[in-house]
Amino acid sequence: MRYFEDLPVGLSIDLGTASLSESEMIDFARRYDPQLFHVDPVAAESTSFGGLIASGVHTLAIYMRLFVDGLLSNAASLGSPGIDELRWPRPVRAGDKLRGSYTILSARPSSSRPQWGVVVGRGEAVNQDDQAVLTIIVVNLFGRRRES
Amino acid sequence: MRYFEDLPVGLSIDLGTASLSESEMIDFARRYDPQLFHVDPVAAESTSFGGLIASGVHTLAIYMRLFVDGLLSNAASLGSPGIDELRWPRPVRAGDKLRGSYTILSARPSSSRPQWGVVVGRGEAVNQDDQAVLTIIVVNLFGRRRES
Repeated sequence: MRYFEDLPVGLSIDLGTASLSESEMIDFARRYDPQLFHVDPVAAESTSFGGLIASGVHTLAIYMRLFVDGLLSNAASLGSPGIDELRWPRPVRAGDKLRGSYTILSARPSSSRPQWGVVVGRGEAVNQDDQAVLTIIVVNLFGRRRES
Repeated sequence: MRYFEDLPVGLSIDLGTASLSESEMIDFARRYDPQLFHVDPVAAESTSFGGLIASGVHTLAIYMRLFVDGLLSNAASLGSPGIDELRWPRPVRAGDKLRGSYTILSARPSSSRPQWGVVVGRGEAVNQDDQAVLTIIVVNLFGRRRES
């Protein structure tokens, strides 16, 4: 179990990989982001994307799962107040294999809750060609190790 | 159909409402954000949240659906390069009814693609007690009306 004290600035974590199938992309988008280029493979061909692409929120959700499996599920995670910046530099297409990573940019004790720590990290997901498809600056709260 | 020219600074749009059930919250979180306070109602009671809360990515996905239904599906939407800031000021709980809104902060033609416009907007989702649960600064691309 990792606490705030185990998350120093500069720590970099490989979050592993995940793949997206066309059916999962379409199912997600039908429910949450039903724009043509996310739900209709034929209509998507005549858009600027030249074919079906994943909803950016879906790409974020996939990254989130990697982040949970690779760090948060084994840490004293107390949630997140938000995201400072998120970019989707390239589209994600069906069959893409994404690899996630996370690097800590800053870490400080919470001013309002001394038993909490505030960690800001930079995350990235790259595709099978090592091209970035998502970059994120995210704020997370972690419990501090109790002194014994 | 709204084009870039139909999206002036200051335009504010009511995006309507959506509700989240506990089963939908848990299903989403099991797949994308399986932290205890998102998937286990009993274990969540002893966390700082005092009960089950929605994944923030799920709250974003619900907002995204409102944004598509309320604007993007009837606009020349060309996707989004990213989010400039996202905050989850309060947790979302099962049964909450969220209302979305969107206000345009800036609008300019794209420098690299003259037929595209870049629109930055501030979005918000509030719960049934009118408390903000999500705020977002989001960048969107829209097609420009062709001169005839």
